[in-house]
Amino acid sequence: MRFSELLRQLSSADPCCARWLAADPELGGAGALHRAGQGQLSFLEPGNRMVRHLDRCQAAALLLPRNPALQQQVQRRNIAWAALADPRLGFAEALELLCPEPIAQPGIDPAAHIHPSARLGGGVSIAAGASIGAGCRLAEGVVVHPGVVLYDDVTVGADSVLHANAVIHRRSQLGRCCVIGSNTVLGSEGFGFIPTAGGWRKMPQTGCVVLEDGVEVGCNSAIDRPAVGETRIGAGTKIDNLVQIAHGVEVGRGCAFAAQVGVAGGAVIGNGVILAGQVGVNNRTRVGDGVIASSKTGIQTDVEPGQMVSGFPVMPHKAWLRSMAALTGLPRLNRAVRRLERRLEQDTVR
Amino acid sequence: MRFSELLRQLSSADPCCARWLAADPELGGAGALHRAGQGQLSFLEPGNRMVRHLDRCQAAALLLPRNPALQQQVQRRNIAWAALADPRLGFAEALELLCPEPIAQPGIDPAAHIHPSARLGGGVSIAAGASIGAGCRLAEGVVVHPGVVLYDDVTVGADSVLHANAVIHRRSQLGRCCVIGSNTVLGSEGFGFIPTAGGWRKMPQTGCVVLEDGVEVGCNSAIDRPAVGETRIGAGTKIDNLVQIAHGVEVGRGCAFAAQVGVAGGAVIGNGVILAGQVGVNNRTRVGDGVIASSKTGIQTDVEPGQMVSGFPVMPHKAWLRSMAALTGLPRLNRAVRRLERRLEQDTVR
Amino acid sequence: MRFSELLRQLSSADPCCARWLAADPELGGAGALHRAGQGQLSFLEPGNRMVRHLDRCQAAALLLPRNPALQQQVQRRNIAWAALADPRLGFAEALELLCPEPIAQPGIDPAAHIHPSARLGGGVSIAAGASIGAGCRLAEGVVVHPGVVLYDDVTVGADSVLHANAVIHRRSQLGRCCVIGSNTVLGSEGFGFIPTAGGWRKMPQTGCVVLEDGVEVGCNSAIDRPAVGETRIGAGTKIDNLVQIAHGVEVGRGCAFAAQVGVAGGAVIGNGVILAGQVGVNNRTRVGDGVIASSKTGIQTDVEPGQMVSGFPVMPHKAWLRSMAALTGLPRLNRAVRRLERRLEQDTVR
Repeated sequence: MRFSELLRQLSSADPCCARWLAADPELGGAGALHRAGQGQLSFLEPGNRMVRHLDRCQAAALLLPRNPALQQQVQRRNIAWAALADPRLGFAEALELLCPEPIAQPGIDPAAHIHPSARLGGGVSIAAGASIGAGCRLAEGVVVHPGVVLYDDVTVGADSVLHANAVIHRRSQLGRCCVIGSNTVLGSEGFGFIPTAGGWRKMPQTGCVVLEDGVEVGCNSAIDRPAVGETRIGAGTKIDNLVQIAHGVEVGRGCAFAAQVGVAGGAVIGNGVILAGQVGVNNRTRVGDGVIASSKTGIQTDVEPGQMVSGFPVMPHKAWLRSMAALTGLPRLNRAVRRLERRLEQDTVR
Repeated sequence: MRFSELLRQLSSADPCCARWLAADPELGGAGALHRAGQGQLSFLEPGNRMVRHLDRCQAAALLLPRNPALQQQVQRRNIAWAALADPRLGFAEALELLCPEPIAQPGIDPAAHIHPSARLGGGVSIAAGASIGAGCRLAEGVVVHPGVVLYDDVTVGADSVLHANAVIHRRSQLGRCCVIGSNTVLGSEGFGFIPTAGGWRKMPQTGCVVLEDGVEVGCNSAIDRPAVGETRIGAGTKIDNLVQIAHGVEVGRGCAFAAQVGVAGGAVIGNGVILAGQVGVNNRTRVGDGVIASSKTGIQTDVEPGQMVSGFPVMPHKAWLRSMAALTGLPRLNRAVRRLERRLEQDTVR
Repeated sequence: MRFSELLRQLSSADPCCARWLAADPELGGAGALHRAGQGQLSFLEPGNRMVRHLDRCQAAALLLPRNPALQQQVQRRNIAWAALADPRLGFAEALELLCPEPIAQPGIDPAAHIHPSARLGGGVSIAAGASIGAGCRLAEGVVVHPGVVLYDDVTVGADSVLHANAVIHRRSQLGRCCVIGSNTVLGSEGFGFIPTAGGWRKMPQTGCVVLEDGVEVGCNSAIDRPAVGETRIGAGTKIDNLVQIAHGVEVGRGCAFAAQVGVAGGAVIGNGVILAGQVGVNNRTRVGDGVIASSKTGIQTDVEPGQMVSGFPVMPHKAWLRSMAALTGLPRLNRAVRRLERRLEQDTVR
């Protein structure tokens, strides 16, 4: 595809405001700025430190921010470019055009195991070795990869994709356009046990898991069902690999949880919350809308909306930076205090 | 089921000491106190902050603690109630009566792959797509969900349940009434490598994993086998999702490990130990009976029995609370010491 | 096998420098020093605290370090022994002789699902329920256990082993002699989303995952593919269970990552790096050759080669030890400073 043609197909949401077409290169792929080779497209964001690679960039064409100095620098290297308000977004759209994902063929493999009471919408794709339990309902266009297991009475909304070996336990409800990663488990039994004289006694977990539209979950994650009621993930929330969402958690819309996050039972997470890698959220904690927690944060108390937090125990990010700077100086501080004490001791003796 | 009938079926271990039956409601389900609707049962524990929802509770019947004031408050709302020594335990029993789990039908699906040398007890249930290796022995009543893989020579005790896509490696031994969550792996090769001039050299992992009776493991967890001997999990121990138990670990009876706990090779954990989410235990560390570790604790040294510990490095919970309180005050402390130093400097100059 | 015969078969890289053959016992297995029983081999390393069990050791034969005092102590107990430069390495070799792993039988199970366009080398073993996608190429001797799923266009080098229910996404490239643990996922979509007014917008992940020769990955781990280019794991690197390697990460040769490590997108890890359990590495961070990070370290800034680091924020291990020692003394330090302040206050008042 020619660069000029690709630019014409980019979303009207972000029309290119300027462009320079050198020889209007034919594009055969895409790459990172320092890796892109002949015939490849790349991009640069405002303020990105990749800019240091620009003078050796081998790409055929670049999506740039609205920055005339950068544009001239690129032009001098004879690289075609276009300037966008959001070059990363444009690159995402370009990738879909240049490297389209393969589309699963509709159809039901004869080696899939489908209970006769399951109801399948038009155009569903079910691969060999998948198991669909009694009473399941899959809407049109759902894709089920090999080895996926749906227990009974699972519902999956239109155009959702279930990757290989994912397991969805009974009565889970998935909305439209959800993506469930390989080996992820939804709707499994919450970890609820009551201490008794005879040992741990299971609290039956009779609730279910609900994923609203557009939720995506990575690989090897787990979302448990509660004793009663629902564990609910709000529309458009994205969850990475190896994440634990315990029973009865409520997650709002448009959140993003990075890998190895753990959210304990009954926590309530607002809308637009971002949790970085290895963050933990305690039982029944409330995290307000728009909170951002940096990696490894341990949220053991409620966090007000809009805060950026860090550390364990959790604190405002700036306070954490100050505490951590002070922490490394702690041995020195100790010595200073001992010096002061000796000094005053001598004063007293005198 | 009528509330009165349900109360008659609760365990004699905790008979209701008082009750008030309004109109003896017919119960059709159960819910959390603030969510329960018409015809639903709920419960309240002593000291639980859910009590604030009591005045708007819509449940038809409640299991309460032995607290006359609460009972009168509920009665005024015309909600039937019964008072129990342990209302949560009563609710667990009630859930089993009101929302019974479906029981797997005995039988072997023709699409299961079973080695002819495997021995299967009466009433086992083996689903489509499961693989049972050579020499495996499944006792009566074992349930094997779709996609489960048993390598050779695995033994599974009576009435154990293996959820979908779980993998049990060779020579693992599971006791009676164990529950293994979806996508969990037992008996995999321990992470044992020896540094040599030619790179990492594998230490063969020839041991096995043993789960005693009543052990439950959540989803996407892993319990490795050791080079020699056993990795052993004591009877009645419950393990949550995404937990790592390394090779050669010994875990006692009646422990509870929350999600994302990691226990490194050769650690020895006593009986009744509770590890909260994201706790780590170092190689060969010994953790005494009854120890409780709060979330994210890093246990890198032995812990005496009965302690409640926190932090990393691990310390008594109260010491950790004090240290953390002091940590947030550290920048202020730094400034105070600098003030003192300047002050004494001036004194000296004068 | 007789002990003398076993010694003859140990690698010439580490010939035993001395030995004492009592009655040249017949060996039927192996065990840890404090557990080994009659007819079993065990070993002891220099400086290992297992030495305290030596006086009660029941093993039939021991591999010892070059330490005459130890050798005499063992001889007094009438246990046969041999002294090696690296007794652990010798034990590893001995285990392979005494407890050989079963070898997968070559052949393709009729219940495997193999796309007709896949190309299979000689001697491959593909179990029931495995799925091999279009265009996959498996070299000679590859072993595919039950339930493994290969998406399209995956290549697997000779003698690699894919354990049960592992999932390899499209275009992943595995070298020779790789081992992929059960339920591990390779080549899944990286967690790349762009914030827009309409919510998170997916960055297409069109790259692939490359594992060089001899890479081993444990169970329930995930290695994601990037938007463009590769996620690459260097030759001989060993990765434990429940590890997350995000999109675009580069890992060098001969590294070892323990369980529950998480490496965020675009990080660059050198050769021979050791990350202990639950370590996290931030986006785009660079970790130099030979770095060792202790458990739970949070590497949020670049680390120079050869350092031993700890803590979060990351610092040199010795600085961390000092800071942590000071941390537990912090409440006391606080009190000392308050005493000093009061003291100077009184001085001023006087």
